[in-house]
Amino acid sequence: MKFISFTHEGSAGSGVLRDEKVYPLTGDLLSHIASGDTQPALTGAAIPLSSVQLTAPLLNPPRIFGIGLNYREHAAESKMKVQDVPTVFLKLSQSLCGDGDDVLLPSDATQPDYEAELAVVIGRGGHRIAEADWQQHVFGYTILNDISARGVQLATTQWTLGKSFPTFTPLGPTIVTADEVPDPHALYIRLTLQGEVMQEANTRDLIFRIPALIAYLSSITPLMPGDIISTGTPPGVGLGRTPQRWLLPDEEMVIEIEKLGTLRNRTRAV
Amino acid sequence: MKFISFTHEGSAGSGVLRDEKVYPLTGDLLSHIASGDTQPALTGAAIPLSSVQLTAPLLNPPRIFGIGLNYREHAAESKMKVQDVPTVFLKLSQSLCGDGDDVLLPSDATQPDYEAELAVVIGRGGHRIAEADWQQHVFGYTILNDISARGVQLATTQWTLGKSFPTFTPLGPTIVTADEVPDPHALYIRLTLQGEVMQEANTRDLIFRIPALIAYLSSITPLMPGDIISTGTPPGVGLGRTPQRWLLPDEEMVIEIEKLGTLRNRTRAV
Repeated sequence: MKFISFTHEGSAGSGVLRDEKVYPLTGDLLSHIASGDTQPALTGAAIPLSSVQLTAPLLNPPRIFGIGLNYREHAAESKMKVQDVPTVFLKLSQSLCGDGDDVLLPSDATQPDYEAELAVVIGRGGHRIAEADWQQHVFGYTILNDISARGVQLATTQWTLGKSFPTFTPLGPTIVTADEVPDPHALYIRLTLQGEVMQEANTRDLIFRIPALIAYLSSITPLMPGDIISTGTPPGVGLGRTPQRWLLPDEEMVIEIEKLGTLRNRTRAV
Repeated sequence: MKFISFTHEGSAGSGVLRDEKVYPLTGDLLSHIASGDTQPALTGAAIPLSSVQLTAPLLNPPRIFGIGLNYREHAAESKMKVQDVPTVFLKLSQSLCGDGDDVLLPSDATQPDYEAELAVVIGRGGHRIAEADWQQHVFGYTILNDISARGVQLATTQWTLGKSFPTFTPLGPTIVTADEVPDPHALYIRLTLQGEVMQEANTRDLIFRIPALIAYLSSITPLMPGDIISTGTPPGVGLGRTPQRWLLPDEEMVIEIEKLGTLRNRTRAV
């Protein structure tokens, strides 16, 4: 199934997307994920997809864990070393936006950059989850654009703030449940900027795979339903180019991940 | 006023502490802070302080921002450089505990260390707050012990996880409203470990003061009621000693900050 969140006639809601129709859920998507029901019955009246405005499919995840340097060539282009354990940082949930939303570029968000990523949405929580049990804890998958103002991110050693300006975390368009993604480690991933291919890779090249990420994170903090783990970006970001290439106002980023659809956002100066 | 949160006869609550008595609030403290009422009328029946068990005074802050390297001598002992802007990291809210709670030391939380800190609790939220307006946005102050497993914190460049094991953020004992702390930049601060003074300083030595921290953070992400900003630790942590000195099981940490009281926690192996 594909889950979305949206606004419709001035109200916020979540629902299941099927055949260009939206079947609204009772309650918000986070409580639905926490309930453990991945296949709700579609009982209510459907709304045409064209009549709703998408938001991030999950607006209130407990935490958004970002993984740094998780494709070897991206670590090299960033001139950083791959470590023995995953490099984990947080993105603030307050930076989320949805498919079609503008990514706002204030003047103090210097050197803005894109990062196409496969994101995992946790279903069942747990502490000290064994790698072998990882699939029991995945609700589904989505696309995340880890927008990063490199000037802020790299002004100190700590990356969170430079990645957490409002709208710096486009997410979506939908959350696709795990049963529709038999192997998340074999997905084509591509980002185009103004139509030009900037990142193109396959999730088979992840250094720390999803079982390892779930085991490592949950060894430290119990995972919670709705937690998002963004698995890291492949090579091709603006930071790693010669010359470096920063996002300009009024540019369109399109991220495509096999089985997960397309996440489109335009930049806008504010 | 002094606000606390607690459990009493199996239920969680918040209240105002006065003369060893607790005056319960309706609703939780976060909604109270968001309402903007710093001086609620004490109408309900009081409970003796001795009959409640303290928890962290605020259990669900939207974010806990930690500030690194904010006392010059601590930056030096950590062999890190003070930057032009504050070094900001997040601590997970799920790591909070209260005065008197045990700090749990699992075996994978290697090289555990203490950090005594003055923490600011945001009242009114805001985006792009001017330094001069900082006082309008402070609800109060409390003590935070930024427990850090250095082995995990410094295994990669990103500090969040090593500082976010469950119980790694003792907070309290109370939140003291800003009117009772005329100058938060002139507070004696001290941490003892097993009765020995390990950190002793004054908040007048902060590099980035509270107005600068509020202005910088809110220039990036709108501040929210209940956000906690922990202002950084003075010199004397275990990491900076020769030889280095890590927390052992069954040790007592006591942090005292002028006007804010005393925060006591024991370590316990798990």
